[in-house]
Amino acid sequence: MTADHVADQLHATIERTKSIACVGLDPRPALLPKSLIDAAIAAHGDTATAVADAFLNFNVGLLNAIAGHCAAVKPQSACYEAYGHAGVKALEDTVRHARKLGIPVIMDAKRGDIGSTAEHYQQAFLGQAPSLKGASLPGLNCEWLTINGYLGSDGVLPFLNKIPGHGGVFVLVKTSNPSSGDLQDIALAAKVRGKSASEDALQAMELMAQLVHHWGQQRTGKSGLTDVGAVVGATYPAQAKRLRTLMPNTIFLVPGYGAQGGTATDALAGIRPDGRGVIVNSSRGIIAAWQKNKDSDWAGAARAALDAMNTDLASG
Amino acid sequence: MTADHVADQLHATIERTKSIACVGLDPRPALLPKSLIDAAIAAHGDTATAVADAFLNFNVGLLNAIAGHCAAVKPQSACYEAYGHAGVKALEDTVRHARKLGIPVIMDAKRGDIGSTAEHYQQAFLGQAPSLKGASLPGLNCEWLTINGYLGSDGVLPFLNKIPGHGGVFVLVKTSNPSSGDLQDIALAAKVRGKSASEDALQAMELMAQLVHHWGQQRTGKSGLTDVGAVVGATYPAQAKRLRTLMPNTIFLVPGYGAQGGTATDALAGIRPDGRGVIVNSSRGIIAAWQKNKDSDWAGAARAALDAMNTDLASG
Repeated sequence: MTADHVADQLHATIERTKSIACVGLDPRPALLPKSLIDAAIAAHGDTATAVADAFLNFNVGLLNAIAGHCAAVKPQSACYEAYGHAGVKALEDTVRHARKLGIPVIMDAKRGDIGSTAEHYQQAFLGQAPSLKGASLPGLNCEWLTINGYLGSDGVLPFLNKIPGHGGVFVLVKTSNPSSGDLQDIALAAKVRGKSASEDALQAMELMAQLVHHWGQQRTGKSGLTDVGAVVGATYPAQAKRLRTLMPNTIFLVPGYGAQGGTATDALAGIRPDGRGVIVNSSRGIIAAWQKNKDSDWAGAARAALDAMNTDLASG
Repeated sequence: MTADHVADQLHATIERTKSIACVGLDPRPALLPKSLIDAAIAAHGDTATAVADAFLNFNVGLLNAIAGHCAAVKPQSACYEAYGHAGVKALEDTVRHARKLGIPVIMDAKRGDIGSTAEHYQQAFLGQAPSLKGASLPGLNCEWLTINGYLGSDGVLPFLNKIPGHGGVFVLVKTSNPSSGDLQDIALAAKVRGKSASEDALQAMELMAQLVHHWGQQRTGKSGLTDVGAVVGATYPAQAKRLRTLMPNTIFLVPGYGAQGGTATDALAGIRPDGRGVIVNSSRGIIAAWQKNKDSDWAGAARAALDAMNTDLASG
């Protein structure tokens, strides 16, 4: 990765692949084909190392099948962390393989911390950490990381200020889950941000959207898009439309398509008039597609599901 | 860990050690004594494995020195994650050593996600993950985990509903950093939660506090404290007092003492009349105490700094 804008890199990948699909690499034992399970147990017993080994082989097969036909992949860090350092090693090897194939990686780790701690997460996912002698030890070197902005600017800017080798972030704004409204939908006092009492009260997610827009302004690429993206769930299309007006140049990473109930039209609610600014994630719908017909060609089933998703989004 | 309330376990540790101090295990190369650096480089070269090895030896020495004199330890996950799977292995071994010494572990990972993803984080830090054959593979098995509640109940309840082997959480409410007010201090519309327009508008952090109180009510131990704690920074003592009225039975994990400017009086602003409900974290002030006088007995310097902190808090 160079010091170029990752927003431009993602845009170029979308132009090249003609896909705005992001494939979620969220492996769990229950989603793995039997052949991979058997091989991993034969090699490592019924251990965490075996799970990690099966995850990696699953991901490599999936990545090889989908390369060139998706905009990005999004590994869910939690799935790997559940298996300790063995799982994290599989995650590292997965990211390395995606890079070899030229697929941008959005690490879905939803990190959020401040100051020097945020810098350590930046090092882990987007940059380099210092060795004992002060040399640079490369981290995962993903292009993007999902982050949680509840701690304010102190929790966001440390991810953005490292050049070269900097990446981009997707800040949680409106998540796709049912209880996302507990905090995100709450109406704010009219005095906040200069709104008069007669206007509609701003919601917490809109305040977060204003911050995202603000953080991104100094980080706009040639594509007109910024390196500070937003997570905006497909399950709330009306909100996505409103959020677009607050974040005109922000890339929306849209979860909740398919399995969680969002249609193509829902997922694309926040797209810009020029057709830019949205990528749509599907995890289980792609990687577990083989389970529908008990298909032994699990990688081929994933590719077919991705093709269908691309067609669906193109008509959405 | 049994299915007993971790709040009671923490309370018992405080009674036994007569300390409400939590020691932050946030190692970085710049904080390591030269003897550990030299030994690690000799064994592993200038690699991530060497950093991880030095971190572990540092932590083991610190833990041996402070055991029995603190309420808990709080490893900062980011410091370890910056060194990939080698760092995570050092974190695992650190937690294991703390458990051997009977010190409760608060994993400071500030995770936040929903549904099955939150369950994977629960597995990683507080529980067990399924093996390929469906057996249970133990995770870190910490007593506590810091989490970010921006996603609402869906992001919190999955951490609390696992019994046996369940742990507790500390939810970010008011963090100690300068920009924490970007979102946390924002005033909410008067209609929210039934307040009349004439009353003071509720702030976002107060809404989060109400949720924390609500989540904790069904999880109250014999000590009168709950397994759903709150992070409340020492740098905002007035807010801590107000937040206590909203969360009467919640344990406050208080960062920001010492290095970040909070005094003992600030740190104890949210304590209950019965003297319960607060633990105060110090990281650099303890683990890097040896740097003040270039003390070769770095573990002894940490213990002396902890003793001084305990005295300071007792008079605060």
